[in-house]
Amino acid sequence: MIQIYTGNGKGKTTAAIGLAIRALGHNKNVSIIQFFKDKKFYGEQKVLKHLKNLKIYSFASKHPHFYKNIKIEDIKNECEKALEKIAKIIKEKKCDLLILDELNIAIRDKYIDVEKIVRLLKNKPKKMEIVITGRSAHKKILKLADLITDMRLVKHPYYTGIKSRKGIEY
Amino acid sequence: MIQIYTGNGKGKTTAAIGLAIRALGHNKNVSIIQFFKDKKFYGEQKVLKHLKNLKIYSFASKHPHFYKNIKIEDIKNECEKALEKIAKIIKEKKCDLLILDELNIAIRDKYIDVEKIVRLLKNKPKKMEIVITGRSAHKKILKLADLITDMRLVKHPYYTGIKSRKGIEY
Repeated sequence: MIQIYTGNGKGKTTAAIGLAIRALGHNKNVSIIQFFKDKKFYGEQKVLKHLKNLKIYSFASKHPHFYKNIKIEDIKNECEKALEKIAKIIKEKKCDLLILDELNIAIRDKYIDVEKIVRLLKNKPKKMEIVITGRSAHKKILKLADLITDMRLVKHPYYTGIKSRKGIEY
Repeated sequence: MIQIYTGNGKGKTTAAIGLAIRALGHNKNVSIIQFFKDKKFYGEQKVLKHLKNLKIYSFASKHPHFYKNIKIEDIKNECEKALEKIAKIIKEKKCDLLILDELNIAIRDKYIDVEKIVRLLKNKPKKMEIVITGRSAHKKILKLADLITDMRLVKHPYYTGIKSRKGIEY
């Protein structure tokens, strides 16, 4: 099955991480491909890298939106490598749960050609669960999905103006 | 801050677990109070119980919706114990992130008096992050929250008829 967590609310990446933890508890093999997640910044990687049966790969860790001096060409090369890794994981058929964290952003920003990833996803082993996160999911990705959850931010007056906090937002 | 993950979509409990993993990566102390989650059933507990700085407590592990021979009185007693544990954690002020998993269901089904939990939550230390999950969040709980994410299930034809799967849904 292909699951998508999208929308402007909180909980997309964290839901995918929770699914990884749940699957590991049942002795499944899990691979996580992360886009645009700086290793030094996000807390989850520090814990996840120590867990058995879990492999985590990080590509294009710096998104040009936050790091202005990053070359688009470098991002595209990194995303190409990520596609190769995804292709390898799908071909090997050893992985039970494959998480493609922020893939939707890589597609939205045209670092990854949607047709290329659609082709890969269509060839996934039937038993492999694939989870895709990120806002602005492409309609061709949505069409492939068996289950879509739209995380909607319900704004609240108190929330306005609170900055991103270590250990919570990242 | 108080965060709520509610709605009929997937990802509420898993988002909370992901937040726990993220917080642990930044050396925070995390406590999880779970309602209606059978230890033998859910995969996450097997992994979470081995993690440093994380405490997980399970109450009323069998919901009468699934286990018809459970006495309502026993559920209420268990929920009362859960409230005592929550009160203790809040009073001790040692916990950075407190997750109340499926608390919304316990309130909805009247096993927990909403006024009692509101009173507790209002006395939380300013720096303690509290995350509440479960569909059908009570309006008095929503009112307390600083951030609400509504997980909306976007149904898809393929999904209809697929049963709950080990390692994914539980």
